Amino acid sequence: MHIGLILRVLAILLIIISFFMIFPVIVAFYYHEEQMIPHFLLPMFIVLVISLPIIFLTRKSVKTLSARDGFLLVSLSWIFSALFGALPLYFSASTPHLTDAFFEIMSGFTTTGASILTNIEGLPKSMLFWRSLTHWLGGMGIVVLTIAVFPLLGVGAVGLMKAESPGPTLDKLTPKIAETAKILWFIYLAFTVAQTLLLMIGRMNLFDALTHTFGTLATGGFSPKNSSVGYYNSAHVDIVITVFMVLAGGNFVLYYRLITGNVKKVFTNTELKAYLGIFLAAMLLIAIGLYGKEYDTFGRSLRYGAFQAASILTTTGYTTADYAGWPFFTQVVLFILMFIGGCSGSTGGGIKVIRIVTLFKQALNEMKFISHPRGIFSIRLGGSVLKKDTVYTISGFFFLYLLMLIFTTFVVASGGNDISTSMSTALVTVGNIGPGFGKIGPTLNYAFYPGYIKWFLSFAMMVGRLEIYTVLVLFTSKFWRK
Amino acid sequence: MHIGLILRVLAILLIIISFFMIFPVIVAFYYHEEQMIPHFLLPMFIVLVISLPIIFLTRKSVKTLSARDGFLLVSLSWIFSALFGALPLYFSASTPHLTDAFFEIMSGFTTTGASILTNIEGLPKSMLFWRSLTHWLGGMGIVVLTIAVFPLLGVGAVGLMKAESPGPTLDKLTPKIAETAKILWFIYLAFTVAQTLLLMIGRMNLFDALTHTFGTLATGGFSPKNSSVGYYNSAHVDIVITVFMVLAGGNFVLYYRLITGNVKKVFTNTELKAYLGIFLAAMLLIAIGLYGKEYDTFGRSLRYGAFQAASILTTTGYTTADYAGWPFFTQVVLFILMFIGGCSGSTGGGIKVIRIVTLFKQALNEMKFISHPRGIFSIRLGGSVLKKDTVYTISGFFFLYLLMLIFTTFVVASGGNDISTSMSTALVTVGNIGPGFGKIGPTLNYAFYPGYIKWFLSFAMMVGRLEIYTVLVLFTSKFWRK
Repeated sequence: MHIGLILRVLAILLIIISFFMIFPVIVAFYYHEEQMIPHFLLPMFIVLVISLPIIFLTRKSVKTLSARDGFLLVSLSWIFSALFGALPLYFSASTPHLTDAFFEIMSGFTTTGASILTNIEGLPKSMLFWRSLTHWLGGMGIVVLTIAVFPLLGVGAVGLMKAESPGPTLDKLTPKIAETAKILWFIYLAFTVAQTLLLMIGRMNLFDALTHTFGTLATGGFSPKNSSVGYYNSAHVDIVITVFMVLAGGNFVLYYRLITGNVKKVFTNTELKAYLGIFLAAMLLIAIGLYGKEYDTFGRSLRYGAFQAASILTTTGYTTADYAGWPFFTQVVLFILMFIGGCSGSTGGGIKVIRIVTLFKQALNEMKFISHPRGIFSIRLGGSVLKKDTVYTISGFFFLYLLMLIFTTFVVASGGNDISTSMSTALVTVGNIGPGFGKIGPTLNYAFYPGYIKWFLSFAMMVGRLEIYTVLVLFTSKFWRK
Repeated sequence: MHIGLILRVLAILLIIISFFMIFPVIVAFYYHEEQMIPHFLLPMFIVLVISLPIIFLTRKSVKTLSARDGFLLVSLSWIFSALFGALPLYFSASTPHLTDAFFEIMSGFTTTGASILTNIEGLPKSMLFWRSLTHWLGGMGIVVLTIAVFPLLGVGAVGLMKAESPGPTLDKLTPKIAETAKILWFIYLAFTVAQTLLLMIGRMNLFDALTHTFGTLATGGFSPKNSSVGYYNSAHVDIVITVFMVLAGGNFVLYYRLITGNVKKVFTNTELKAYLGIFLAAMLLIAIGLYGKEYDTFGRSLRYGAFQAASILTTTGYTTADYAGWPFFTQVVLFILMFIGGCSGSTGGGIKVIRIVTLFKQALNEMKFISHPRGIFSIRLGGSVLKKDTVYTISGFFFLYLLMLIFTTFVVASGGNDISTSMSTALVTVGNIGPGFGKIGPTLNYAFYPGYIKWFLSFAMMVGRLEIYTVLVLFTSKFWRK
């Protein structure tokens, strides 16, 4: 374990994040919330006081991280980012306890969007801006992680991307990765500008447009409004956000392909086809379920159905209607979507479409094998044969994910909560979605959970966001053995 | 496909089942329900009229079944057994429609124990006896299938048993299998006699003792009483049934080992240890949850907790209390148990403990591999190394099982049912448990479901009982291709 280097990277990371606190300070100036400014400057000061000496003292540390260093570093990064990011909320007493502040900001960075705030609109604009900005940082961070950190760690996600799209051999050419990462940042920024402008055309002010864009592109779900996107009651806003949620839940590598003119690769992509297929099917099923019961026209049913399907599938968590009052059938469709998630290389959470597709193909493969025991069958994804070891890793991931769901359900239930509440809380925290069913329904919040459940859920959000293995591996004795 | 041989075996099988209809006829004589007798004799007559010519015409068919023949035969056997077994209920108008009769008897043979009867005690004793007898036949049938048919079919379950207990190489020595199967029958019969006597000591009459024994040892759950085992309100009865449920959910091969003196093999068995561990943990958690809230003494809490934990884990489905009114925490524990099931080689349904243990070990293995990418790790079960292909098959099974759960949830929800009802219906039909939560809670029944859902659930019970692959493989195009 290279403690020196880990501390060094952590210190640099916190300085980068502290830099972004300048933006809520600007918002505070603009909205005359001068009393908020010290609550941002103090954490920035604390970071500098702690980080600069660390960076100086570790200047002679080794330069390469081992796989194990990587896991420890990534997990610690997320814990310290959330802790540091929670300080403005804590110092300004925007949340009653540090527990709540930590939960809220972990929810932000992991792009979960689960909130402990009972009256969102009661918070200063600068604080709401910071809260939404953590989404944007977390979403971007994860895309970069997938492209830049994961090959270093030797984790399966890139193995998967390689199998699916053997173009830029991501885990070999470091300059290429950096270049790709830059382009992905650019796409993310371009999407941010585009969505912000489109929302402003729909008569949103810049503040609302920016915060909702952060929440959309990061598949986060924090809104500065108590009634989420439903506040605007605007078809224009709903459609813009629906489209960008679907884009955010797609693979950003594919958008890079589109730019570089590789259109065929995009439209033959197995994961994309499955992802869009699931979205369209869910949208239609929900619209059919709503039509004549919740909304008079099929158009309106489609608008609300598409929004909610996109929101849950991409793990965003925005709402335009109280789906807890919708017909049960549409609720069950949403519930099933909670198990899926976005595409690999997206900002979305969950199990991810590619894993579901792989496991599905493998199960079909087993059935072929059963009918023809002497046959040889392989799993193909977009033209390439998937290695058995990749499937093995995915199946391990899948089981651990479900185990994490079961354990989280159990922990939530220990607080005396019903099956629907406990299970959907597990699904929407580990899956980084946000709102669920029962006591954490679309119009409700997480404030009522006791402290120990809030801490555990913060942990669950992180475990889900870092794709299970990264965090859980730290709890195995093998990890700490030479 | 050897249609001739398949028809021949089917005809023989139906004759064997029709022979067992003599027992309800005896019950009808004893309880002076003479009007019921023709309803049993007519189906027997129909079977003979159809089966005897088939047996005669197919006397020159081939003598060996291919793997594919096996799958088709097993699936058809269960469909025709349920159809034929449903005739007495249908002819006697004990159920309103054939749909209900088919559902009830499929629930019987698959040892699910889900009932469409709104007033069980209103049925003639002979009909209730037949209903319980289908449990006993289905339970025994499955044990024999696991031991005798599955190696022929080359299905993974035996591969697993081999890995766990390399003693009698079950899939090689045909005489040995037959011998083992005989001993298993003997154990099943011995358990039947023992439990019946123990229940009679607890002041049950022979009829009640026999029917409850059938429901227990087959992990079925049909009771001739509306309020299930709760009717007797007797600690003696509760304890006897709890113990025999746990025995029935254990691996019958291990009992054979115990008889042959191989005590060490039994107590080092990984699955057994996990199974008992899960049972004891669930029992304690539920008892703690009940103590002081539902029952005044910890002893009573333990008695009711142990009964319900055993009933759900082993997929029996008997109840001694309305757990729908219990504290939420205990309900969530029961809900989690619904995902597990009994041991391999037991009469229990569900995913089975051995699969959960294997997937858990594989996930841990992946984590070891992540920390030490150049290490070589293997999965050990009870001293032997598990083959990668076995793990592969198990992970395929696991995914298909969950897919079947999701699809069943979806079908049930299409009838306008809530998440709790839809999902627990899926869990308890595919898992062959019986009672669930919501509208199919412990004091309720399946009568209210529309016909199409009843037919689908009958299918789901069969798919679950025949371990998913056996039935679903028939729906792949590869199966029907040469």
